[in-house]
Amino acid sequence: MRAGQMASTSSAVQAYCAINITDMAVRERLVALTGGQEKVAACGAFLVICGDERRHRLIAARAGTRYAGNLESFLVAAIDATLFAQNLSVALESMGYGICYIGGVRNDLPEVDRLLTTPEGVFPLFGLCVGVPDETPEARPRLPVSAILFDDRCPSDRDSLAALDTYDAEYSRYLAARGAAPRAWSEAMARKFSAAERNGLTAYYESKGAVLGPG
Amino acid sequence: MRAGQMASTSSAVQAYCAINITDMAVRERLVALTGGQEKVAACGAFLVICGDERRHRLIAARAGTRYAGNLESFLVAAIDATLFAQNLSVALESMGYGICYIGGVRNDLPEVDRLLTTPEGVFPLFGLCVGVPDETPEARPRLPVSAILFDDRCPSDRDSLAALDTYDAEYSRYLAARGAAPRAWSEAMARKFSAAERNGLTAYYESKGAVLGPG
Repeated sequence: MRAGQMASTSSAVQAYCAINITDMAVRERLVALTGGQEKVAACGAFLVICGDERRHRLIAARAGTRYAGNLESFLVAAIDATLFAQNLSVALESMGYGICYIGGVRNDLPEVDRLLTTPEGVFPLFGLCVGVPDETPEARPRLPVSAILFDDRCPSDRDSLAALDTYDAEYSRYLAARGAAPRAWSEAMARKFSAAERNGLTAYYESKGAVLGPG
Repeated sequence: MRAGQMASTSSAVQAYCAINITDMAVRERLVALTGGQEKVAACGAFLVICGDERRHRLIAARAGTRYAGNLESFLVAAIDATLFAQNLSVALESMGYGICYIGGVRNDLPEVDRLLTTPEGVFPLFGLCVGVPDETPEARPRLPVSAILFDDRCPSDRDSLAALDTYDAEYSRYLAARGAAPRAWSEAMARKFSAAERNGLTAYYESKGAVLGPG
């Protein structure tokens, strides 16, 4: 946890917290709420990583000032929480543990919130499963470096698409090798983004005090 | 860069890119735009880390589907980009480099964007200075673990504030030791959040195609 905390933090705000779910009945409920991911209950530890503007709100109230939130403070909380989580993950992996991020926590945030009863200013972003791995799967291939690192200018639309052909084939082979239906990465992405997922996040985060609109 | 890319990514979307600023005239402009941070020009390499929904938009257009963005896809891009950046940072530090995140990139995003001419769907989140450190400053103290890690439930308002007293004193001592005006962390936070910073982010990100409103 200390290694996680030593990640960079915007102006030292440390706008995050981690809720360690020890109550197995809550873990079982979270399996259902994250889309049936059994590992949420089966793993050694399950953390819910949250943006946390609450400490700053309490401090402002004590100092007699108003906490002024906007998209910047929301984004800082999301980025701070993620820097923390990834530094924590690298530390855990260096100790022999494995991790798995659980974006499924955002499937039904109001219900997750009822379960965890997080206060105003604390809002779950994702989960983190931690455990001792009992398998060593092949790593999922990533985009070529040339597709994500550019000198000075983003490439043209045409060059951006051309950079994907080799990767599409490699991704499809990877899926086949692990026994899944082979599919090009581009095909998977076109399907995934053809319908918006997890609508309602704006309303949920605003219900926790975030200000996401123009300001 | 490959180590950075091996960070987790939501459903393999890899919704990020890094723009490596090699043009020193652009670096000098970025010094001014980030609030006079000379290190942006002086460091060995300066990357602008961006959320990148563009590849997915181009793929959707090629497949004849509509790219459906919302706060979920924006948040996934911000989280994916940050996971990448932090894994990259740990890899760089393991190689003897030092890094510094530059949130100041968000001071004036429309102007940064004019300078970098990023296309629709690509939006800068923060900068990353990389270089060989020529100093070894004391690490800024972090909140106690008990203030950011909870079993099952967030603590009460009262307990949350009580957890800060020792840290406030420690933070103030740290500032004094590095020759800065001593100030409790709580005092710094109350002041920082008494006025909203970087207003206009919602309008900027929406101008790049992000959909942040209720959906």
